Amino acid sequence: MIECDISFARKYITEQDFDAAKKNARQGSQLIKSGDGPGTEWLGWRDILSDPNDAEIEEISTLAAQIREQADIFIVCGIGGSYLGAKAVIEALSPHFGADGPEIIYAGHHMGGKYLSQLLSYLKEKKKDGSHKSIYLNVISKSGSTLETALSFRMIRPLLEEMYEEEASERIICTTGKEGGVLNKLIEDKGYRKFIIPDNVGGRFSVLTPVGLLPIAVAGHDIRTLFYGAVGAFNRYEENPEPVIEYAALRHAMYRKGKTIDVISSFEPELKSFGGWIQQLLGESEGKEGKGIFPAVATYSTDLHSLGQFIQQGSRSLMETFITVKLPTSKLTVNELVENGDKLNYLSGKHFHQVNAKAREGTIEAHSSGDVPVVKICLHALNEENIGELIYFYELLTGIYVYSIGVNPFDQPGVEDYKKAMYRLLGKENQGT
Amino acid sequence: MIECDISFARKYITEQDFDAAKKNARQGSQLIKSGDGPGTEWLGWRDILSDPNDAEIEEISTLAAQIREQADIFIVCGIGGSYLGAKAVIEALSPHFGADGPEIIYAGHHMGGKYLSQLLSYLKEKKKDGSHKSIYLNVISKSGSTLETALSFRMIRPLLEEMYEEEASERIICTTGKEGGVLNKLIEDKGYRKFIIPDNVGGRFSVLTPVGLLPIAVAGHDIRTLFYGAVGAFNRYEENPEPVIEYAALRHAMYRKGKTIDVISSFEPELKSFGGWIQQLLGESEGKEGKGIFPAVATYSTDLHSLGQFIQQGSRSLMETFITVKLPTSKLTVNELVENGDKLNYLSGKHFHQVNAKAREGTIEAHSSGDVPVVKICLHALNEENIGELIYFYELLTGIYVYSIGVNPFDQPGVEDYKKAMYRLLGKENQGT
Repeated sequence: MIECDISFARKYITEQDFDAAKKNARQGSQLIKSGDGPGTEWLGWRDILSDPNDAEIEEISTLAAQIREQADIFIVCGIGGSYLGAKAVIEALSPHFGADGPEIIYAGHHMGGKYLSQLLSYLKEKKKDGSHKSIYLNVISKSGSTLETALSFRMIRPLLEEMYEEEASERIICTTGKEGGVLNKLIEDKGYRKFIIPDNVGGRFSVLTPVGLLPIAVAGHDIRTLFYGAVGAFNRYEENPEPVIEYAALRHAMYRKGKTIDVISSFEPELKSFGGWIQQLLGESEGKEGKGIFPAVATYSTDLHSLGQFIQQGSRSLMETFITVKLPTSKLTVNELVENGDKLNYLSGKHFHQVNAKAREGTIEAHSSGDVPVVKICLHALNEENIGELIYFYELLTGIYVYSIGVNPFDQPGVEDYKKAMYRLLGKENQGT
Repeated sequence: MIECDISFARKYITEQDFDAAKKNARQGSQLIKSGDGPGTEWLGWRDILSDPNDAEIEEISTLAAQIREQADIFIVCGIGGSYLGAKAVIEALSPHFGADGPEIIYAGHHMGGKYLSQLLSYLKEKKKDGSHKSIYLNVISKSGSTLETALSFRMIRPLLEEMYEEEASERIICTTGKEGGVLNKLIEDKGYRKFIIPDNVGGRFSVLTPVGLLPIAVAGHDIRTLFYGAVGAFNRYEENPEPVIEYAALRHAMYRKGKTIDVISSFEPELKSFGGWIQQLLGESEGKEGKGIFPAVATYSTDLHSLGQFIQQGSRSLMETFITVKLPTSKLTVNELVENGDKLNYLSGKHFHQVNAKAREGTIEAHSSGDVPVVKICLHALNEENIGELIYFYELLTGIYVYSIGVNPFDQPGVEDYKKAMYRLLGKENQGT
């Protein structure tokens, strides 16, 4: 169960303003449920949970297990919603040091030549025994034509064909739309494996489709439990969406109050990339028609030593969201030193988790007293089930809150603008994006 | 030479407002030069450049060369200004794959138990030949008592003593204040190597002291060229600070205009952590007395696929700063495919750098037309000399701009608030921070 504590922030809002915001949020919740709002053709993130495709989860798990056995390297080639969800879950659940299984490498998420050129050399390098590295490549793009991803794929693919010849086609897995697009033609010609991104699921809502599930499974995590964590949250909030409506109302009221920035942070370094996923989910959904609260990402206590000063005493344009975890992520305790030169023996025997939790509570206290409204989202434990819950929680929150401020949460018309200008500058003949 | 192009943003400001801002910025510049402003005891970041300590640079380079020869792992144990500068420069200049020399690991920058516990196991793990890994540890803290850093140091130190016995004292290097503090006592007792952080250099201005120089040199970069790049910029802007004054005035005017967020971004993925360094430098300097523009960090084109929508069409509270690089970071060109299934052969033969540059120019065009003022900072090449210049450029900009909005750029009183609350919650008897 996700606990969402808005009490620290709630006191900045009058009863009247909160009631008004709640009314808007409740309407947003109804639009999500009825499917009568704008963007209704993009509600597939709910359909996949109300009617789970167990066979697909099984198929992905089986393939991932094979890849884990055979691969040295697994390349996730995608950008935006095609990789942020996988990265978020993988970093939340994987060890920092000493992971087993293949090395996960991201590509296709920018056009930096140095990165790609060094990646190509790294892939080519032979192992100590003189054999090729065993490389699998998952290219993820609904249309197949997103430039960053398509360019990286175009550079890596010939290398795999050179290294593995015929066998390359078993090592390339395309996650793409059901029909049409650049990748489906290639799949037909070359016999690549294919997973489908449902038509009615947008990029930033796609982590629980094969887009996220395959990379997450290859990284060694139990995608069935992750998925059913989200299903559990779906069922719970279908019955009672009130906790999400309250949070949406709070954020709505903060927006009305003129807050322009939401600093999304966690005291668990594992959740930094999860913040990046939330950043896209909220930012790309609400940032339209001159509206929205800009989602910034921070990791604490790290960034208390860089952004902390501003948050405590700078322009009062901020609210904060802390993603916290109740159960310890490790049993490590502070050691005891006879000499006690650093005078920290008063902490000896305490779990790092406890010390970190005090830093967190101290920060909530300090920032609250500095007029920063803080929302606290608490997971029970950092595991597949709870991360699955958190994913749906934030998807639903995004839908409800963004409808509540009068914006279609599911399109992204502004993303095309830079692409149009770029394609013109690149001399592309047909300047569709 | 850093080129600073404010022309895209300049058009949002009237002549009159810009002149007024320039007057303020010019006063800021005079305060920096005369040392008559508040925080004058913290201007050491200028002194070190006007009177370079060549012997120290030489000493650090020599030690770093020894460490590079002997170490498998070099741990940088510090937080905030004690590691962000080193991380920024190391990531800007190091290869993405296949770096030679020791693995650089950061520690002491948070209190996550999972991270530290897995790090300790990783350090303990023997090599394939049964021998210990060769580990060096650089602990960086002026007072030695910053909790995150002190706790990690306290956990790692006994491990090194167990692994290397007497020899441990040669493997631990303390970068700390000249006198006093926790580390100086230990240095005396154990004979650790010591480098001094000058009293008059604050954390966020310390990258060109041993704080940053040792880790950067251990990562294999030429710190003399880096340092003298900054010296060159220092001399140039002493003679003519006008380009920095103009940029400071622009940012001042943006602040007066009500901009609350500056998205600092680069089209070179190598500069992401450099954005983090700028984020601390500006944010911790200007975020006081309810003032300041919140510095957010992004990497393009990656984040155009997550934040791009908001920046293009969301709340108009934003300005943007692009850090760009003129010369290619690699010679990689787009390949030609006979089949041309992705229809990208029209780019064949183009450098990735060119394609990326078109994406950047397209983005400036699109964001400008979406009412986002863009500042473009251009390095000639991504190398030590230019990064050194950029460091001083941003230090000076920060001093001038922050003075111009009437704030002392050099203190950080708000950082103590969460620490006080935390220490009380932890039951520390003497609750100094």
